[in-house]
Amino acid sequence: MRRTGRKQAPGRTGKRRGRFEVRTDLALESREDVRSGGRDNGIAVREWKEEGGRISLTEVQVKSEKGARAIGKPMGTYLTLETGRPGDQDDGYREDVADELAAGLRRLAGKALKKKDAQGFPGVHVLAVGLGNPYVTPDSLGPRVLGNIRITRSIAEDGDLPVISGIVPGVMAQTGMETAEILRGIIRETKPDLVIAVDALAARSIRRLGTTIQLTDTGIHPGSGVGNHRHGLTEETLGIPVLAVGVPTVVGAAAIAQDTVAAVAAVLEKGGRTRGMGAWLENMGAEEQYRLIREVLGPELSQLYVTPPDIDETVKLLSFTISEGIHRAFYGI
Amino acid sequence: MRRTGRKQAPGRTGKRRGRFEVRTDLALESREDVRSGGRDNGIAVREWKEEGGRISLTEVQVKSEKGARAIGKPMGTYLTLETGRPGDQDDGYREDVADELAAGLRRLAGKALKKKDAQGFPGVHVLAVGLGNPYVTPDSLGPRVLGNIRITRSIAEDGDLPVISGIVPGVMAQTGMETAEILRGIIRETKPDLVIAVDALAARSIRRLGTTIQLTDTGIHPGSGVGNHRHGLTEETLGIPVLAVGVPTVVGAAAIAQDTVAAVAAVLEKGGRTRGMGAWLENMGAEEQYRLIREVLGPELSQLYVTPPDIDETVKLLSFTISEGIHRAFYGI
Amino acid sequence: MRRTGRKQAPGRTGKRRGRFEVRTDLALESREDVRSGGRDNGIAVREWKEEGGRISLTEVQVKSEKGARAIGKPMGTYLTLETGRPGDQDDGYREDVADELAAGLRRLAGKALKKKDAQGFPGVHVLAVGLGNPYVTPDSLGPRVLGNIRITRSIAEDGDLPVISGIVPGVMAQTGMETAEILRGIIRETKPDLVIAVDALAARSIRRLGTTIQLTDTGIHPGSGVGNHRHGLTEETLGIPVLAVGVPTVVGAAAIAQDTVAAVAAVLEKGGRTRGMGAWLENMGAEEQYRLIREVLGPELSQLYVTPPDIDETVKLLSFTISEGIHRAFYGI
Amino acid sequence: MRRTGRKQAPGRTGKRRGRFEVRTDLALESREDVRSGGRDNGIAVREWKEEGGRISLTEVQVKSEKGARAIGKPMGTYLTLETGRPGDQDDGYREDVADELAAGLRRLAGKALKKKDAQGFPGVHVLAVGLGNPYVTPDSLGPRVLGNIRITRSIAEDGDLPVISGIVPGVMAQTGMETAEILRGIIRETKPDLVIAVDALAARSIRRLGTTIQLTDTGIHPGSGVGNHRHGLTEETLGIPVLAVGVPTVVGAAAIAQDTVAAVAAVLEKGGRTRGMGAWLENMGAEEQYRLIREVLGPELSQLYVTPPDIDETVKLLSFTISEGIHRAFYGI
Repeated sequence: MRRTGRKQAPGRTGKRRGRFEVRTDLALESREDVRSGGRDNGIAVREWKEEGGRISLTEVQVKSEKGARAIGKPMGTYLTLETGRPGDQDDGYREDVADELAAGLRRLAGKALKKKDAQGFPGVHVLAVGLGNPYVTPDSLGPRVLGNIRITRSIAEDGDLPVISGIVPGVMAQTGMETAEILRGIIRETKPDLVIAVDALAARSIRRLGTTIQLTDTGIHPGSGVGNHRHGLTEETLGIPVLAVGVPTVVGAAAIAQDTVAAVAAVLEKGGRTRGMGAWLENMGAEEQYRLIREVLGPELSQLYVTPPDIDETVKLLSFTISEGIHRAFYGI
Repeated sequence: MRRTGRKQAPGRTGKRRGRFEVRTDLALESREDVRSGGRDNGIAVREWKEEGGRISLTEVQVKSEKGARAIGKPMGTYLTLETGRPGDQDDGYREDVADELAAGLRRLAGKALKKKDAQGFPGVHVLAVGLGNPYVTPDSLGPRVLGNIRITRSIAEDGDLPVISGIVPGVMAQTGMETAEILRGIIRETKPDLVIAVDALAARSIRRLGTTIQLTDTGIHPGSGVGNHRHGLTEETLGIPVLAVGVPTVVGAAAIAQDTVAAVAAVLEKGGRTRGMGAWLENMGAEEQYRLIREVLGPELSQLYVTPPDIDETVKLLSFTISEGIHRAFYGI
Repeated sequence: MRRTGRKQAPGRTGKRRGRFEVRTDLALESREDVRSGGRDNGIAVREWKEEGGRISLTEVQVKSEKGARAIGKPMGTYLTLETGRPGDQDDGYREDVADELAAGLRRLAGKALKKKDAQGFPGVHVLAVGLGNPYVTPDSLGPRVLGNIRITRSIAEDGDLPVISGIVPGVMAQTGMETAEILRGIIRETKPDLVIAVDALAARSIRRLGTTIQLTDTGIHPGSGVGNHRHGLTEETLGIPVLAVGVPTVVGAAAIAQDTVAAVAAVLEKGGRTRGMGAWLENMGAEEQYRLIREVLGPELSQLYVTPPDIDETVKLLSFTISEGIHRAFYGI
Repeated sequence: MRRTGRKQAPGRTGKRRGRFEVRTDLALESREDVRSGGRDNGIAVREWKEEGGRISLTEVQVKSEKGARAIGKPMGTYLTLETGRPGDQDDGYREDVADELAAGLRRLAGKALKKKDAQGFPGVHVLAVGLGNPYVTPDSLGPRVLGNIRITRSIAEDGDLPVISGIVPGVMAQTGMETAEILRGIIRETKPDLVIAVDALAARSIRRLGTTIQLTDTGIHPGSGVGNHRHGLTEETLGIPVLAVGVPTVVGAAAIAQDTVAAVAAVLEKGGRTRGMGAWLENMGAEEQYRLIREVLGPELSQLYVTPPDIDETVKLLSFTISEGIHRAFYGI
């Protein structure tokens, strides 16, 4: 769970030049920038509502390397469900969210396995992986979901339904092993067809905490997750398709600092006699911004995160919704 | 565990006028201000080192109401141990910390009970209270310490040693009751002589996380702790003396925002052509500062906290050190 | 959780003379004996089925002191639900069980509070108590149920519904206090109208483990529960009515020994040439039987229990069913 | 964790003919029988005391297939430490036990790795495995030990010390995978030199619960452990040497029944007029005995176990002693 402390490289090129980038695991949070870059950048965005407007869905398709560079995320499909806060949802709302998640899982699993989801994936073996640290509340989403999943690989008798196996690999401080090492070994022995990895994510914006579910067929990427996986978990590294389901439970403390700089800039800009100061601050170089935030947060800034105090209840409720979505997607119930 | 969301009142009088105050539970973090206010303010500060300089101790005595107003903490004694980070301590270091904590506990317990600690408190009944939420990692220090404490009230046979009873009262979202209500009831029934309450604290500075232990004879005060106790736990509310042992495990997210404003101010001040801007920013009114931070963090700003990802390991190690300190103080082992 | 080791007194009078009695917390398991004692013994038994025969209900009413002596349980109502094993139930089955439990709770609560349950108990304050040790799987039913209960006392705004507060008092080895002391104190401070205590029970028969829910208005009695509460929790000791919901999760190891003696007796009886031996064994005096079982199990025989290895799953499923039953009884949902 | 329910085959040949065998994971509990079989059976037994007689050590070496058949355990070394009950030990006692365990681990590791332990195993990679179900108290020893082990594989910098990696593979009901599958995969990826598997065991005798530590170089065998691993974990199945550390935390309920039969037999034998009955009962055929016990315990008899109620404290204390022993063996501290 110990983050790698890897300094996030400042000073990237392109539109965001001059901005120290705080990590987000959500494709959605990169979208705005991308759009303003034009239509022909290899990124397709589709938005719609379900369940009487209570769930907003956004599908971002990154179709080219150019799009991947622009958005800072690998090529593939990113489906995002935006909902109210779990603590404010009633049971019916939660079931609707599980249904939408199930539909998304079936669609992406069908694509990954080159099957029509109408067939229901008979005989397919899904390995469910609960990433994160069960002992750190906001990082415990993956282990908690696994605790709810009905595991059938050892008891299923016929091939009418998929079978699910599951593992909570732990984090490197607990195992001394990369999650990728553990999973590669298990996959070689048990030969699943598909990995579904569940993970707690870091978002850029506090209002996303607990309210956004991201589903992607691109797997888990280096540096993502609350616990900062050093290596990625992708079809490339594991040998089979990897769907990832994630929900932001933390925001990097650096994001708070950066947002404060922006807010100060806006204040200065509005204050008449300081015209130009805000813009100057806003455009302060990435190196300088990084230095400023480092001064506030100390050398371990990338290891500090912000989380709300009701995160235990949020993670508990989300773990039921996500396991329910997986059950509905693969067991049809 | 749900914080009360109570907006921390801006605009206090005195030296800190014009500054939106971010909460700290550490008397030590109020000290600097106080000192500059002069010697005759009813606050006595004593500093020394122990164990070859590895442990810094500071005792702040708030001796008058004037001092209490100046420091923003009630009258009483605040003993602070500053150490290295728990994960970097070896076993011997941890034992030294437990010894220093035990010495402090014996001293304050002796004062509270009006006994000489040399007598070892035979027959005294101590009620150990583990405040906080066991399911939220940085708030689980109290419950974890209680899990390690040797409880003797039901098995002790003679009166040579104190007896310890213990309770983990839970947080209001779990019980629907004020901790003070639960404790008052238990105290009335079981008649302990002294409460030792263990709690996770909020600090102002990130470098204090896990490295500072505060021991005080003033009890627990409204709004303190990671979980923001609404009512206080003091001799006044509980009827018997209350020693409180706390370690900061979180920093309010608002502190990050505020520190960033200060850092930006410093940058602007240094930048020649902006002379005066930094000072202006620094002195921006409390209301305005609160509005700015609220814009960054949203309306629930006081509920967001910053914590490091290795907090589970830190809390685990500290829970052994603190329970060990309590054992040594009262069982002499 | 440490059982009191109190030797269960052998040699009672009456029909069961000469039999060392192994404890059961289920009134149902005393019934057979009682019936053979005749109709006018102050015990009324009513049996029926619900939900298409999937749930068997039995209500034992102990109406006189004579009946109480006969059955070895205090006067009051004992409602028992017999179901299939939790792991074999589908979701619909579990909801039916929750519904039946809710109906029973409403009925007994109405009687205890002298209200018509049709009124829905507006403004009533229920204190839910999770007895047992969260760290010992078969004893963790009470704490787990409490983890699922929606606590409203601190947030409810009007008086249309009852409010629920809740406490997990822990076991004496953890607190050094009697559960009755803790509850009496809390009740005095917070003034609830009714206690609902949830506890794991000891049964006499293995087939009852996880399949029988007992609801009674007689409270919790000395020596009952997996963890053997030393004092009772009753209207007499707590001052307000106490409903108790319990499920057997263990069988005392002594029951196994005793059943084996009976089975051996039957074998000997059937074997022609040993006629009389079985009867002799069956009727062996209580003292001798106790000595024999003590020889097999050692001096701590009353502290040893038998439990199935899937008890964690059983307790988890039951904790959802029971909390659901409580929600439906009091929140009407 | 769900036991395989496999009926333990009655009716073996040899001295124990006619006896339904209740499983024990302790070589020590097979010894008596073996000894009476003579000296030349390929089994060497050595007994001694350490630490002023507080720790009894027994080393059983099974040197031939004939010995293995006689004892019902594979060829190899079985070192057993017998101590007082963990709850009755003081800190010094526990440290002595850890020291003896460390000495045994070093000796068996040296043999397995064909190294002199004086060299301290520099550069050796040990994979520590915590078998069992963390959610079932008596089966949680392995996972708890792993929670205490200092994992160094990902952080060690030079080759002066061994490195330890660790995994808690879960039980089949949670993963749908054989533990052997998971471990084989991980071993293939991370190439450790040695496995140390920690597991909770089933004993034949109640007095062994928590008081006996068995260390063996023969690995984990099919059907052993509280959770009944279906496949073995041995050098044969995993490809590298496997040391197993185990402590009995349960006794099969069938053992209670069987012991009761024996006790009844003894009673009958002593009772003058029934001479011959006891012997007849004692020698009752295995099939009949199995039928009798099955009648008492029901068809799932092999899944029921007996455990004491203070098992949580016992497992907690043992988990510290065993992790300490592993640290001292490999890190020399």
